[in-house]
Amino acid sequence: MKELGTHIMLAHGNGGRFMRELIGELFARHFANPDLDTGVDSAALPPTDSGLFVTTDSFIVDPLEFPGGDIGSLAVHGTVNDLAVSGATPQWLTISFLIEEGFEIDRLERIAASIGRAARECDVHIVAGDTKVLPRGQGGGLYLTASGIGTRTSGVDLSMEKIRPHDVILVNGPVGDHGTAVLLARGAFGLHGNLRSDSASVLPYTNAAQKFAGLRFMRDPTRGGIATVGNEISLRTGLRIVLDETTLPVSDEVRGVCDMLGYDPLYLASEGRVVAVVDPGEAVSLLNAWRALPGGERAAVAGSIEAGRRCVVLRTTLGGERLLDELEDDPLPRIC
Amino acid sequence: MKELGTHIMLAHGNGGRFMRELIGELFARHFANPDLDTGVDSAALPPTDSGLFVTTDSFIVDPLEFPGGDIGSLAVHGTVNDLAVSGATPQWLTISFLIEEGFEIDRLERIAASIGRAARECDVHIVAGDTKVLPRGQGGGLYLTASGIGTRTSGVDLSMEKIRPHDVILVNGPVGDHGTAVLLARGAFGLHGNLRSDSASVLPYTNAAQKFAGLRFMRDPTRGGIATVGNEISLRTGLRIVLDETTLPVSDEVRGVCDMLGYDPLYLASEGRVVAVVDPGEAVSLLNAWRALPGGERAAVAGSIEAGRRCVVLRTTLGGERLLDELEDDPLPRIC
Repeated sequence: MKELGTHIMLAHGNGGRFMRELIGELFARHFANPDLDTGVDSAALPPTDSGLFVTTDSFIVDPLEFPGGDIGSLAVHGTVNDLAVSGATPQWLTISFLIEEGFEIDRLERIAASIGRAARECDVHIVAGDTKVLPRGQGGGLYLTASGIGTRTSGVDLSMEKIRPHDVILVNGPVGDHGTAVLLARGAFGLHGNLRSDSASVLPYTNAAQKFAGLRFMRDPTRGGIATVGNEISLRTGLRIVLDETTLPVSDEVRGVCDMLGYDPLYLASEGRVVAVVDPGEAVSLLNAWRALPGGERAAVAGSIEAGRRCVVLRTTLGGERLLDELEDDPLPRIC
Repeated sequence: MKELGTHIMLAHGNGGRFMRELIGELFARHFANPDLDTGVDSAALPPTDSGLFVTTDSFIVDPLEFPGGDIGSLAVHGTVNDLAVSGATPQWLTISFLIEEGFEIDRLERIAASIGRAARECDVHIVAGDTKVLPRGQGGGLYLTASGIGTRTSGVDLSMEKIRPHDVILVNGPVGDHGTAVLLARGAFGLHGNLRSDSASVLPYTNAAQKFAGLRFMRDPTRGGIATVGNEISLRTGLRIVLDETTLPVSDEVRGVCDMLGYDPLYLASEGRVVAVVDPGEAVSLLNAWRALPGGERAAVAGSIEAGRRCVVLRTTLGGERLLDELEDDPLPRIC
């Protein structure tokens, strides 16, 4: 790595020798796969005979590295998960880097290695990228934008329009871990803890769920948390969404931090969770299938769909109901 | 627009109500097309029976609006052009916004309108997007990342590997206008001028060129300019690239600014230019086809490929030769 120097210079983004070396010696080495050619303007994808899905997401998380992941693995998982919950098999990624002048090359390499590792674990190929360098003071270290392309899984057709009253809402594990872990990693409020981000691919869960004919819809509860997923469903379907505090899993540490700081874990981001809406007749079977997966032990019923006035409510452990409105303020900027 | 307020707040990026309204009332209105559904995690693309190409690019240009374009039209043209020069027909775009807190919503709307207009002109559909808001001071106003997907044009197969000695290098107009126009728009060095960016789709030119069986390769001379395209070809093919100062078009205003400030126009970005390498037997016909296009009057021979030691040289008007090395320094950051 010595040839690359120790810190990013403006010249690493100018199209010339330094950029070519950065791409060739750092990115190409960690992203290597049969579909990647860093010398072309656009990548030719191998032919497919199924329909395609496409998604894009930018990542601005601070700090860039946190317990359980970093901005690189987060970008891969976030993009893979957006495809997975849509009923697609993720196949190809593009990644664009906005790097601030002065950024440590060792750190960039750790993050690139993490991207490469996460992509291999998810069996997706990085096929195109871009590198721009921002003058010192005009960027927060590193921002990533990933786009993903997936092939449609045969026979799977999911949408909010399929959701009916009495459908059951499942979640594959405790919610709010990512948002809370990133908050703790900032050392804000003098708090520290052992909590790790849940950042992970949800492919094992979406693959298992797609085998159920009664699966209506899936979504990953990232920005805005599971309460925001509830609001999106409610707005689109006009139905009443009931989340159930007695069954919806939240880890003790997340609950402790949230109680202390006044956050609601239902609005905090998870990055390895999936919410599924399923026909009530298949809910138990799907829940058991999820619980049988490694790491799926805490999958649970999150709530249900009800007929009646459009809204999202939390049925509390005390038997009351609390309205879960759409998020207005941003309690935690730069969380994903 | 009143409902959206006047300036971007952190809450416009939190997944909640403000973000939904921003997407629904501003982006969706300007980007509307039959393939766009802002309520899904990933967009289903209509089926195609040809191979696909994919590309990605981030845009960090300063100022965001300049004579001849803005960051929005630039993002569309840059992405469309990367597909066009690869022998693809651009079909779908994704656009991700990194917006700094406090950004004017009127300005965001002008840029969104420009994106929508450019996309319609290029006949591409925006199918997915993302919005993140950076806390004040952590972003330079607005950064965009666009990814593009195109379908392979039947019978067209371009690559640097096809380039042979004696092939002719053509360019569809004067080079360096974009870089120089952005520099002037900054008001740097107290300079002002009437120069407009050449930012445009090169599709009319790539479509015309693809009809020639002797077309080997095309590239758009953006970051690093036409000298960098020469170096990329030379590095990959091991051939000697000769650019010809007597025929390679540079506008008087670009030359004047460059002479004054010590820049070389051959290293400055164009954003509506395409460089084609073509069999010498078809060079004149292709040049005439380009010159017959609206705006193509100044298309010209830029140089030729020669056998011999790998390098890029400029044959000067005085009959001498000047080495055009790979770019090292970045003379003009945030140009595209």
